[in-house]
Amino acid sequence: MGSTYTFEEVLGIVNKEILKTEYNIEPRSLFEPITYILSLGGKRLRPALALMSYNLYKEDVLRVIPIALAIEVFHNFTLLHDDLMDRADMRRGKPTVHIKWGDNTAVLSGDAMLIEAYKEIVKVDPVYLKPVLDLFSVTATEICCGQQYDMEFEQRMDVTIPEYLEMIRLKTAVLLGCALKEGAIVAGASDADADNLYDFGINVGLGFQLKDDLLDVYGDSTNFGKRIGGDILCNKKTFLLINALEDNASKSELMEWISKAEYNEEDKIKAVTAIYDKLKLKEKSEELIRKYYQKAINCLDKVDVDKGKKNELYSLAEHLMSRIS
Amino acid sequence: MGSTYTFEEVLGIVNKEILKTEYNIEPRSLFEPITYILSLGGKRLRPALALMSYNLYKEDVLRVIPIALAIEVFHNFTLLHDDLMDRADMRRGKPTVHIKWGDNTAVLSGDAMLIEAYKEIVKVDPVYLKPVLDLFSVTATEICCGQQYDMEFEQRMDVTIPEYLEMIRLKTAVLLGCALKEGAIVAGASDADADNLYDFGINVGLGFQLKDDLLDVYGDSTNFGKRIGGDILCNKKTFLLINALEDNASKSELMEWISKAEYNEEDKIKAVTAIYDKLKLKEKSEELIRKYYQKAINCLDKVDVDKGKKNELYSLAEHLMSRIS
Repeated sequence: MGSTYTFEEVLGIVNKEILKTEYNIEPRSLFEPITYILSLGGKRLRPALALMSYNLYKEDVLRVIPIALAIEVFHNFTLLHDDLMDRADMRRGKPTVHIKWGDNTAVLSGDAMLIEAYKEIVKVDPVYLKPVLDLFSVTATEICCGQQYDMEFEQRMDVTIPEYLEMIRLKTAVLLGCALKEGAIVAGASDADADNLYDFGINVGLGFQLKDDLLDVYGDSTNFGKRIGGDILCNKKTFLLINALEDNASKSELMEWISKAEYNEEDKIKAVTAIYDKLKLKEKSEELIRKYYQKAINCLDKVDVDKGKKNELYSLAEHLMSRIS
Repeated sequence: MGSTYTFEEVLGIVNKEILKTEYNIEPRSLFEPITYILSLGGKRLRPALALMSYNLYKEDVLRVIPIALAIEVFHNFTLLHDDLMDRADMRRGKPTVHIKWGDNTAVLSGDAMLIEAYKEIVKVDPVYLKPVLDLFSVTATEICCGQQYDMEFEQRMDVTIPEYLEMIRLKTAVLLGCALKEGAIVAGASDADADNLYDFGINVGLGFQLKDDLLDVYGDSTNFGKRIGGDILCNKKTFLLINALEDNASKSELMEWISKAEYNEEDKIKAVTAIYDKLKLKEKSEELIRKYYQKAINCLDKVDVDKGKKNELYSLAEHLMSRIS
């Protein structure tokens, strides 16, 4: 029986490989932003999932590195362009690319970064190149669709819960599913296993994003690393806000805060949080997160691999749902 | 001996295939701009070159369609993002995507379009998938570099002729070379032929862009389809302007026009054109175009295929250099 890497060991491998990627190409002005955004860190969850999924079957996890890097580079490309579109000034405590280098460089470095993602993924074992590329591209399109819905939701006050869940599935969950499924594909796993790992990723991803929404309101800013109440201030259509807007008694008070151009920020955060409290939306979110967690576990149960090998994925899922940051 | 398609026949096939591409995906708001920009027309030169190159060796040109479409979709993606970065309002007589749908949709639809280009190219015969993808990605990066140089040149008054020629090689010529080489690759041509066809494309591309710069000043607006003098008004660092700036006697008069915030447009076009005339830059351009045309012909001569089969490429190169639109 082969050895299974812990999540921390996998992260170590992934981080070492990310450090090795070099974009010392001319013109430097185009490639510096790529190195910059990749150096800002992040959970490295997606590349780790690709390795962990492969590691359910095989030990030479370096074979998944092209996929892991492609997915992480792609993920950071979406952050780069999303920050530009959302006019976000800061990312992980540092100025965003368009703030540091201007809008045009942000557009073009992002484009170059998307191409770099494809350059990484084609390094995969040729036997699996076609299915790996196909899933990657389908997923990439879905993520663009998710971002488009997210932006469209900003202009709408009638977003429904199913619409919101579909948006976060596209914007966040599918890339986790993709990472897991591609790890399984290059390990030569059965279609059933690959699909169950994909579904595990989707459900973890949905719970992960709901947890993120929750931490934005109920988290501790020191742990969370972002300002608490950011989503409230920019009227982001989160699970919490959409639920609150569906409550007729709260809607007019919320709409008043949303339409106000000038207000005291702390007052708005307090008032909106009070509405969420009154409607017990923290509890409602946590219940839904538990539901997705349970679904994820059920999918992982069905993966036809020794339970011992799956332990790291079970505990990672649990950690992601109960995390405070 | 097999039949060789004429350029017009190849264009007919290409246009039919472009019409077949459908992006009726939700959200429509993300994919409508893709259909829109592809419907604006254009020369369809790059996909035609891929088919013509393949047709030197084989007749079933439909096998190159994935490459032809990928290259044309990619080319239009670069136009979409370039128009956004250059704040261009019009493209082929119609409003640009960012004018019609806004900056954010232009960013995101462009991203989706780049992914669609990769989705097309992976439909190629699996035997050639890796080399075709590798050249496509290398070329895509080069084109991003070309656009970055082009934007950087806007802020510089000391751009040299070699720098300019390298910029247009990257921004324009490499995609012509890529189209021709990939057509040869999937036809199973020798490496030497594939490389000679690539170099043919590079030289045609360099001459093509120099001709474009020339038509912008000396063309007829009815034929050219764009306003004459557009490059002069926006101080674009073309072969003509860079040469004129290198002439010490003309530099101060040019710099005065370039630095003027308010002026009569026709006066500026007339004055700058007079400098170009005085320096015989039309003749100097035409001489360089002829030089690249001759280099292109020399490359095509070396392609180890019956001369009769190459006739369409010879006459296309000649047409591109002598065109008035």
